[in-house]
Amino acid sequence: MSGRHGPAEALEALRAHQRQTEALAQIAGRLSWDQETVMPRGAAEQRSEEMAAIEAVLHARRADPRIGEWLEAIGDEGLDARTRAELRLVRRAHARATRVPERLAAEIARVTSVAQGVWADARRDEDVGAFLPTLAEVVRLKRDEAAALAGEGSLYDALLDDYEPGIDQEWLSALFGRMRPRLVALRERVLEAAASVPLPKGTFPPEAQTELARACATAFGYDWTRGRLDFSVHPFSSGSGDDVRITTRIAADDPFNCIYSTIHETGHACYEQGIDRAYRLTPLGRGVSMGVHESQSRIYENQMGRGRGFTGWLFDEMRGRFGDFGISDRDVFYRAVNRVATGYIRTEADEVHYNLHVLLRFDLERDLIEGRLDVADLETAWNERFERDFGRKVDRPSNGVLQDVHWSVGLFGYFPTYTLGNVYAGCLWKALRAEVADVDDALAAGDPSPATAWLREKVQRHGALLEPVDLVTQATGSVPGEGPLLDYLEEKFLDLYG
Amino acid sequence: MSGRHGPAEALEALRAHQRQTEALAQIAGRLSWDQETVMPRGAAEQRSEEMAAIEAVLHARRADPRIGEWLEAIGDEGLDARTRAELRLVRRAHARATRVPERLAAEIARVTSVAQGVWADARRDEDVGAFLPTLAEVVRLKRDEAAALAGEGSLYDALLDDYEPGIDQEWLSALFGRMRPRLVALRERVLEAAASVPLPKGTFPPEAQTELARACATAFGYDWTRGRLDFSVHPFSSGSGDDVRITTRIAADDPFNCIYSTIHETGHACYEQGIDRAYRLTPLGRGVSMGVHESQSRIYENQMGRGRGFTGWLFDEMRGRFGDFGISDRDVFYRAVNRVATGYIRTEADEVHYNLHVLLRFDLERDLIEGRLDVADLETAWNERFERDFGRKVDRPSNGVLQDVHWSVGLFGYFPTYTLGNVYAGCLWKALRAEVADVDDALAAGDPSPATAWLREKVQRHGALLEPVDLVTQATGSVPGEGPLLDYLEEKFLDLYG
Repeated sequence: MSGRHGPAEALEALRAHQRQTEALAQIAGRLSWDQETVMPRGAAEQRSEEMAAIEAVLHARRADPRIGEWLEAIGDEGLDARTRAELRLVRRAHARATRVPERLAAEIARVTSVAQGVWADARRDEDVGAFLPTLAEVVRLKRDEAAALAGEGSLYDALLDDYEPGIDQEWLSALFGRMRPRLVALRERVLEAAASVPLPKGTFPPEAQTELARACATAFGYDWTRGRLDFSVHPFSSGSGDDVRITTRIAADDPFNCIYSTIHETGHACYEQGIDRAYRLTPLGRGVSMGVHESQSRIYENQMGRGRGFTGWLFDEMRGRFGDFGISDRDVFYRAVNRVATGYIRTEADEVHYNLHVLLRFDLERDLIEGRLDVADLETAWNERFERDFGRKVDRPSNGVLQDVHWSVGLFGYFPTYTLGNVYAGCLWKALRAEVADVDDALAAGDPSPATAWLREKVQRHGALLEPVDLVTQATGSVPGEGPLLDYLEEKFLDLYG
Repeated sequence: MSGRHGPAEALEALRAHQRQTEALAQIAGRLSWDQETVMPRGAAEQRSEEMAAIEAVLHARRADPRIGEWLEAIGDEGLDARTRAELRLVRRAHARATRVPERLAAEIARVTSVAQGVWADARRDEDVGAFLPTLAEVVRLKRDEAAALAGEGSLYDALLDDYEPGIDQEWLSALFGRMRPRLVALRERVLEAAASVPLPKGTFPPEAQTELARACATAFGYDWTRGRLDFSVHPFSSGSGDDVRITTRIAADDPFNCIYSTIHETGHACYEQGIDRAYRLTPLGRGVSMGVHESQSRIYENQMGRGRGFTGWLFDEMRGRFGDFGISDRDVFYRAVNRVATGYIRTEADEVHYNLHVLLRFDLERDLIEGRLDVADLETAWNERFERDFGRKVDRPSNGVLQDVHWSVGLFGYFPTYTLGNVYAGCLWKALRAEVADVDDALAAGDPSPATAWLREKVQRHGALLEPVDLVTQATGSVPGEGPLLDYLEEKFLDLYG
């Protein structure tokens, strides 16, 4: 036998290596789940060492020089689409793992783990100045990382590529540029009428909220034999393949918090659960990008969960479970679910405001990474932009520049995927309504399955086989753009509050 | 810089490597916890791949050839006791990982994972014949493994060494040989009088049982900030350092099941929680052997938990929580907790019978591994021995040779550590009662802390610093033997039922 592998042998070796890596990545994900749901609080310090150990193993496996040798031995002749996609994903992960010097990666891990605590303290104390030196350090390190990754390309694109491959800031910037004026205009047209919408009043016992959340997840097709529901401070979905868990949270006076968090996470989870089982524990066996992931969670939560049909069913469910909660009929309930109000906080924003929060962050973080904005000027830039788009002044840093954890932990390039998810959701919703006849009737009966079956077929089952934009293009027949989302928002909210 | 490490540099490199290995081993343990408590049932197949992946990583790390080079570079000059102990443990794990050929290890993993299912089916069907070919295969593979490990030594000792380092079958055999006649005689003297003991009657709501279990764990010193209580089919304790979790189970009509399972697992967990924090994520940072581990769980459960003092406190607790449950006073309650009855099942056995179950298994498994007993003759050998020691015939295989999972998964050499744990517990109990004045009064007030403080100081805090027999010898002032345990059993049960 020669020292060099034949193509078939190399492919087999690469796949065996990769399968173990995928399994270990699932374990790392489960550890995070454990940390956020059940871990004893005294275990935090030890856990951070455990996480670092498995991340180090994962990094070493992705950077393994044999991957380069295998890829070379495999070549690119006569490969089927699936294999080509697998190799593309392995090659990308390998490149990312090898381009960033180990010392820089370790430094980023060290600094961001400390930075999160500094940020949390600064937010608590409403003290931007206390966070800025640390943020400057994080920005500097992320710029170094981006430079190592970027080669000839732009710094911000190199970071963006980690969350949304195949997208660049130029395209995003044009897309967001078209969205912003329409969103600002829509906001101004609906605000006044939306102000008088009532909120649910009453007692909403945690057990009953949990039962309703479970009923919603079940309605949206969550497979309980391959998942479970728990509680955490920030709801999330976690895991791929046969173990995809979701969490929610309970606010005693606001049942919508639990319900819509659950439906949102159910969207993420159904995406993972809906991937072709043949892809399990391969690079294809998980959602392809943050944007496409968010498209599923948002279309479940908003287009379906906050639509007129489903909220009718939900109103009856709530009356049955909670009795009278101060909302008299389905029409008022539909408005209550779709209340529009200008708030400071992105995560609490309604559909009209949400993307304006994201667009603001995108522009600022791009300027930080590209060196056009100094962290010293960040708060001013934030506050000016906020006042321009939202028509009010930021009252304190925790309601402004200090509200999100992302930058402290080095997540630059992540924010735009939230809006991209909404844009994709808009495109998918338009296409599925054109193709599936009984969507509205079924939703009104509490049955999203005609819609979710279409999403599973067109999007979910493919896992990471196609690049994000190709996937949405194939599913909808058109290259994704802002039109369908904005048409949907204008139609819905002008009908409600126009 | 030369290619070879200096001793200090090599020690540092070895420790860094080992620390990551320990962290990964903790992760593997947490995965098992997850599997037994919260994992969705549909995730089983994927989980087995995840477990295999992390076990492969652990094996590769333990077998890493650099460990041999580091150990050589470190040498054995001028090392302190702690470092010597660390290196001894690393060397042993490295030797075990490298001596067994990878193909054999993989074959054992494959066969035992299937064998467990074959055993479960055979037990359900009461069909020994259906299990024997698989058992023969497991025995053959374990003999091969033992031969690879043993070098010049005996096969059984090589397997035993994995669970109880420093012990050999000759010593064990002599110890157990002295125990057997005294246990058989004690059994015969107490059986008749013990037959008339009443059992608790009534309703024992799961929530109240759980609360009482929590109260017991708290009383015995379990640190809830570094652990948690869940439910599983078979109770267990899991993890080391700052994340040591326990499980229990609820039988609606038998509150003792939950209470004593919990106290038992609390003993295991307090051992791990009691280890010097400086040893965390090092080879010293976990219980030194299965035998010493079992000594802690059994002394918590039996010498303390089933003693006259603590059962008095427990009786009052139960009356307060469950009302009248058919037992009128503390004396009768003490007898109810210490009922003696001949049963078939080891895990349900009382203190008088328990070790006779173990001695039977020790003799049979030793003969299987040493080639003196064929699996075809195993059932007959089991049934003859059972009738001789227990005075009754085995009525069906699930009550006899098919009752335990151990052999199906390759756990040969594990059974004797149960009795060894009881023997150590006997020695420790004698010594601590001689040294600590107020043990009984405190236990009668529901406070085991004087006793547990002694155990923490003498045993638990040392982790794996000393070999098991050395640890017990240092703690008690004598080489461990059967005397104290048998004296304790005879005194307790002849007092009760003599």
